[in-house]
Amino acid sequence: MSQAIQPILDTLLDGRTKGFPQDRPPLALGAVGSQGWNLLAGDLDFPAAILRRSVLDRNAAWMREFLGRTGASICPHGKTTMAPQLFHRQLEDGAWGITLATPHQARVAYDHGVKRILLANQLAGAGPIRWIQETLDADPAFELFCLVDSLEGVGRLAALAKGRRPIPVLLELGIPGGRTGVRSLAEGLQVARAAHASDRLVLAGVECFEGIIGTRDPAADAEAVRTWLDALGDLARACAAEDLFGPGEVLLSAGGSAYFDLVVASLGQVRLDRPVRVLLRSGCYLSHDAGHYKRLVAELEGRLPEAWRAPGHLAPALEVWAQVVSRPEPTLAFLNLGKRDVAHDLGLPEPAWWYRKGPEPALVPAPPGWKLTTLYDQHAKLELPASDALEPGDLVGCAVSHPCTTFDKWQVLYEVDDQYGVVGAVRTFF
Amino acid sequence: MSQAIQPILDTLLDGRTKGFPQDRPPLALGAVGSQGWNLLAGDLDFPAAILRRSVLDRNAAWMREFLGRTGASICPHGKTTMAPQLFHRQLEDGAWGITLATPHQARVAYDHGVKRILLANQLAGAGPIRWIQETLDADPAFELFCLVDSLEGVGRLAALAKGRRPIPVLLELGIPGGRTGVRSLAEGLQVARAAHASDRLVLAGVECFEGIIGTRDPAADAEAVRTWLDALGDLARACAAEDLFGPGEVLLSAGGSAYFDLVVASLGQVRLDRPVRVLLRSGCYLSHDAGHYKRLVAELEGRLPEAWRAPGHLAPALEVWAQVVSRPEPTLAFLNLGKRDVAHDLGLPEPAWWYRKGPEPALVPAPPGWKLTTLYDQHAKLELPASDALEPGDLVGCAVSHPCTTFDKWQVLYEVDDQYGVVGAVRTFF
Repeated sequence: MSQAIQPILDTLLDGRTKGFPQDRPPLALGAVGSQGWNLLAGDLDFPAAILRRSVLDRNAAWMREFLGRTGASICPHGKTTMAPQLFHRQLEDGAWGITLATPHQARVAYDHGVKRILLANQLAGAGPIRWIQETLDADPAFELFCLVDSLEGVGRLAALAKGRRPIPVLLELGIPGGRTGVRSLAEGLQVARAAHASDRLVLAGVECFEGIIGTRDPAADAEAVRTWLDALGDLARACAAEDLFGPGEVLLSAGGSAYFDLVVASLGQVRLDRPVRVLLRSGCYLSHDAGHYKRLVAELEGRLPEAWRAPGHLAPALEVWAQVVSRPEPTLAFLNLGKRDVAHDLGLPEPAWWYRKGPEPALVPAPPGWKLTTLYDQHAKLELPASDALEPGDLVGCAVSHPCTTFDKWQVLYEVDDQYGVVGAVRTFF
Repeated sequence: MSQAIQPILDTLLDGRTKGFPQDRPPLALGAVGSQGWNLLAGDLDFPAAILRRSVLDRNAAWMREFLGRTGASICPHGKTTMAPQLFHRQLEDGAWGITLATPHQARVAYDHGVKRILLANQLAGAGPIRWIQETLDADPAFELFCLVDSLEGVGRLAALAKGRRPIPVLLELGIPGGRTGVRSLAEGLQVARAAHASDRLVLAGVECFEGIIGTRDPAADAEAVRTWLDALGDLARACAAEDLFGPGEVLLSAGGSAYFDLVVASLGQVRLDRPVRVLLRSGCYLSHDAGHYKRLVAELEGRLPEAWRAPGHLAPALEVWAQVVSRPEPTLAFLNLGKRDVAHDLGLPEPAWWYRKGPEPALVPAPPGWKLTTLYDQHAKLELPASDALEPGDLVGCAVSHPCTTFDKWQVLYEVDDQYGVVGAVRTFF
């Protein structure tokens, strides 16, 4: 384990930290896992966000196997979890670096010992650019790559970057009506030439984010993603033909958490006159989810050629647990879980577990008739059959859709074993 | 200013805090306001969340005037901001106490010197109840009220409350199909009798949360709210007739941020054989917003009788500022602002200000043709006329809808003067 996360382990938690047991004395985060706590025994307060360690382990193994079979590298998107402890876990698993979305996020990662960062965004702020440049100059082991998508952006970055080491940039390819990125090969070549011409920048590769594509037609989506990725390969070939890339290997990067198979299939075909590295950036594979990405990864698994099919499946490691506070009508119960606690942008959480208190406590799967239908700021409305004996004090474990907007609602999540014993705590920095 | 917030003022901020200028050395939060920083000069990083101090002042004055004219008290909902500095500002403004939604939030408030808390929720967790009981016993100046809405809830709370001081409870009245709360006067009386009969509890009043009512028909909504509030008054009279309330004044509490005029109109009519206090709980009046609550408060102002009409109007004090990172098409720009930074549950943010860089920097209202149409995790898509010269590096100030789900995306917000000079910093605890 990296020494750089020791300050996280030393962080004192107390009842002011959401989920930490309110009636316990303050405790160092690193000591949480050795207290013998169990979520089902009521040793945490509710709501509480948990990560199932065995599922994290299996998801990590699945991705290692996928990468081994395909020859791609991964620079997982850290914005999903913003948890340096998980970043180091991913680096120990073989990740090439960590992707981040903003200078603030990059700063959090660097301050916790992450030395290779892909900042998958354009940079506009003078202060952050100054910090990056000063840090690159001060720390020879630090590498940071960012994106460019316009002549003006290249000019602005080059003008603000005044240090000794040039800043490596990836040229971003977008799609008409999409998000950031140049809209054509011709435009891309112009930007690449400008980056090449600047002595403050060095063109290190090309990049796109295909994850913005998503309709109700998976086949059409996959086709649109393939077209985009093939165009990215063409852009890389055109840049190489003009010798615009800097020294060393060329990075070909794409890949959210939905189409990384297509990224390997397309970018893995690109041959240049120098080494290339296909760099995936999936942020959600580790925690996975039980909604949005579960559906998209089921499509992905269906597309995989036999040779790339790792044993097992990605599974949701992230759950949010809440307590029933009221059962005001036979078919209605309310949980102490709200918009402040769980993602609600790509589907509401779904009840997955029911822990019944009483003389014979029992953990059972949530009955199929249960449905979480409304999320208020601090309450969830659960509709259920009148015959189900759910009552105040009972616990409900919810599966979530969209890890990114669940992690960001917690400063501390708990790692648990398969019996919901608390084996660790993970701190986030949002 | 309360000494209890000194630890907040002493908090060291650095570039790992979102919005704090990344290239500056660490600084105590309490010193932020004396640095001479200005948002428009680029002294903060983007995105950054700000509170306009003059607007906070005017909103506070408006509410003081409204309370003075109506005779109601306020126990503002602290869950909106979770900022103890703002809690103390509200207490200094005359607030009766602070409302919170969860034991965790109550703990944050208490640890920062808030001595009277209305926990507007049912309590289910043994640990939190233990902490409350122990704290009530240890600190004679501490008062905490919570809600009950079932015989079972009364039984559970009474069984877990083992301290010397009984816990004061408010009986919650709900509506069929609504949220928590008893569904009828008869059911309410049963619960009130049980609370009265317990030596661990004392019935301190009645309560409802009418803010869950909201359709597209304001007149019908107002009528439904009036009916609910009148029923709450009937419930209070019925409890008083059976002498179920504890000693001292009876609390009659309701009032989110949309219908507090109706609360005063209805509950202000209730006469019992002892003193009553009409207790509003609006959480959003102080920051207000430019979307959801702006519309609801415009309806509210239209209903106000002349005698209750305070001068001026509530106005949005909360803004989130972002920087343009890309203009990939003539009619598209992208801001470094995402779901992680601003509310998106009751309408997307709206561009309000444009700060153009260049040789003659200028702050102008955002042109009417600008529209923020998609919020990604870390980007916002801004559609605009091709002729508008917005470019990377420019700043866009956004008005927000729903303060609750904006505050919770920031650990630190900045207070600014009317020229966007930074005059302070406010820490949140989510």
